[in-house]
Amino acid sequence: MNRIQKVKKFLGKGFDAILVSCAPNVIYLTGFDGFSSKEREVYLLLTRRKNYIFTDGRYFEVVKKLKGFELIKISPSKNWEQGLKEVVASEKIKILAIDESDLKVSEARKIRKLTKICSDENLVEDLRKVKEKVEIENIKRACGLGDRVFKHILSEVKLGVTEKEIAKKIEIFILGNGAEISFRPIVAFANNSSSPHHVSGERKLGKNEIVLLDFGVKVDNYCSDMTRTVFAGSATAEFKRIYETVLNAQRKAIEFIILKSSILNHQSKIKLKTSQVDKVAREHILSENYPSIPHSLGHGIGIEVHEKPSLSPKSKDILTSGMVFSVEPGIYIPGFGGVRIEDLVLLTKKGPQIITRANREIIEL
Amino acid sequence: MNRIQKVKKFLGKGFDAILVSCAPNVIYLTGFDGFSSKEREVYLLLTRRKNYIFTDGRYFEVVKKLKGFELIKISPSKNWEQGLKEVVASEKIKILAIDESDLKVSEARKIRKLTKICSDENLVEDLRKVKEKVEIENIKRACGLGDRVFKHILSEVKLGVTEKEIAKKIEIFILGNGAEISFRPIVAFANNSSSPHHVSGERKLGKNEIVLLDFGVKVDNYCSDMTRTVFAGSATAEFKRIYETVLNAQRKAIEFIILKSSILNHQSKIKLKTSQVDKVAREHILSENYPSIPHSLGHGIGIEVHEKPSLSPKSKDILTSGMVFSVEPGIYIPGFGGVRIEDLVLLTKKGPQIITRANREIIEL
Repeated sequence: MNRIQKVKKFLGKGFDAILVSCAPNVIYLTGFDGFSSKEREVYLLLTRRKNYIFTDGRYFEVVKKLKGFELIKISPSKNWEQGLKEVVASEKIKILAIDESDLKVSEARKIRKLTKICSDENLVEDLRKVKEKVEIENIKRACGLGDRVFKHILSEVKLGVTEKEIAKKIEIFILGNGAEISFRPIVAFANNSSSPHHVSGERKLGKNEIVLLDFGVKVDNYCSDMTRTVFAGSATAEFKRIYETVLNAQRKAIEFIILKSSILNHQSKIKLKTSQVDKVAREHILSENYPSIPHSLGHGIGIEVHEKPSLSPKSKDILTSGMVFSVEPGIYIPGFGGVRIEDLVLLTKKGPQIITRANREIIEL
Repeated sequence: MNRIQKVKKFLGKGFDAILVSCAPNVIYLTGFDGFSSKEREVYLLLTRRKNYIFTDGRYFEVVKKLKGFELIKISPSKNWEQGLKEVVASEKIKILAIDESDLKVSEARKIRKLTKICSDENLVEDLRKVKEKVEIENIKRACGLGDRVFKHILSEVKLGVTEKEIAKKIEIFILGNGAEISFRPIVAFANNSSSPHHVSGERKLGKNEIVLLDFGVKVDNYCSDMTRTVFAGSATAEFKRIYETVLNAQRKAIEFIILKSSILNHQSKIKLKTSQVDKVAREHILSENYPSIPHSLGHGIGIEVHEKPSLSPKSKDILTSGMVFSVEPGIYIPGFGGVRIEDLVLLTKKGPQIITRANREIIEL
């Protein structure tokens, strides 16, 4: 069963058509990644009879090559509401499922004039949580290049270099290897690293300073994401203590997944709560008298760098085999700096597999 | 009067607080560009008394450095709705203006439980249309680097190179010059160029083929955007005829702006309808028996590569001095190829200024 068929299995369960608006979901269902993720350039409309694609003249040529879609042409003289109105009439759509976490208030208002709407309950995002073989291969290739980025960039971390320069070198290395960045690299020196999402700036690297590197690669639409925190100089006792605490928090979280997997593996599917995994890492950090992680322990990854599931205290997500997610504990001390160690984990039927392979031990440059 | 004061002038006109959610608007009002534009990581809430910024622990350190904002801390144990509820109570907010073209249906539902809402009528986007001096300087710097990109990349366009390779070289040149791309470059060879938003692929350049290059640079948060279509080989008569038609369509549109500016300049402000400018270019192309432009003639540019105003047949936008926008007619013939010529224009009190300066005449490589 292909992806669209899986989505259409939900037809009849409270709605008779599904509107797909979110760009990553469009990539997932069409395989085409040329539409903007910032602007609305396409909608898919899935009904029992057909699959419609609404787009404008910039994309007609490309969309004609996609199989299984009927093109609804949007133009300066025909907007998408007019196109939707026609399909609602011809397909007799009574209730249309929309993606409430993506659709804008102004769009929903226009659609409500044409038909009743209801939430699609994030059904495409839920399907995307469990990766197919080809998706896992792409993510692994992205991780492999990420490992090479890390190895390469260590040779560029020298006294006097700026955060921005290192960030650019990461980007250029990724592009030079035929891939794209999955997000703007985060490079933070010294106490700048206490801000988990620091924007790389003009700060120059001094002696005995923390270097936090968080970056991701995109290969064939699939993302990687990793963070390493190294020390430029001879690591101080305080840095080492923080580093070991973060690393142990990560180890404990992954060991917890291994343990639960082996217990649950006697059942047909591995199932464990993401909030439990988050708790293991979070409590280890607290037990060492450091402040709690100011972000979630991890996130799913795939077409988007952040997607379902969320590994966080209040998450209701369940981990099952086929999911790929980050495990990224961190300790951040304002004025001193921060340490984050982030790896990607693939959960298989045999347990978790760490698919980012770069060295996790303390590195002193 | 600073930007936030300009926005707050609208308080009392139907609402007593304004929620700013859209990432480019947050950049415009705070000067900080570290928040994701893909995920919701921040809200600004402007009331008569205060300016609140809602964000989570990843950004506390950064946000504390922003002047004039009160931080509302979001954490795993306190979501943004709880934060908003508290401010709605303490500030006695009765009606909150929201950005309906940005806010998601699911977000609006949560807000409606806390207070009445109404549309902010895109007031921040409207302010952003007219650029300040510093914004114009940034856009001009981005355009200047764009001109250099074009000059550089021509030396890389050789038989056998792929579209993707040229696109990567454009990106690397931009990064190497300390800037960012404003969008993924569009590189289309031969008949691929008939698709206005072609995704650069593995196609190799052959003899006597069209090369369409559309790319943009981002400097200090401000974008440029330009398109050139060159010929690898000795240009055919048909290519030349199409090229001249597109170039003349662009010239006529700009001449129309010059003409209208000089007439209107006797009044205090230049005002002319964008739809009229679009019409001039569109009709020229039709008069030469080519198909109408399958996209709008142009778009405003600034923090976003596409922003207000829109130069299109149904647009109600008015051009006034201080606006920066693209003028980009194109002719696309399926099976043959396409030509687009895109430049950025700054409208000043003295008339239009073309701020992309790369050669516009036919180039044969």
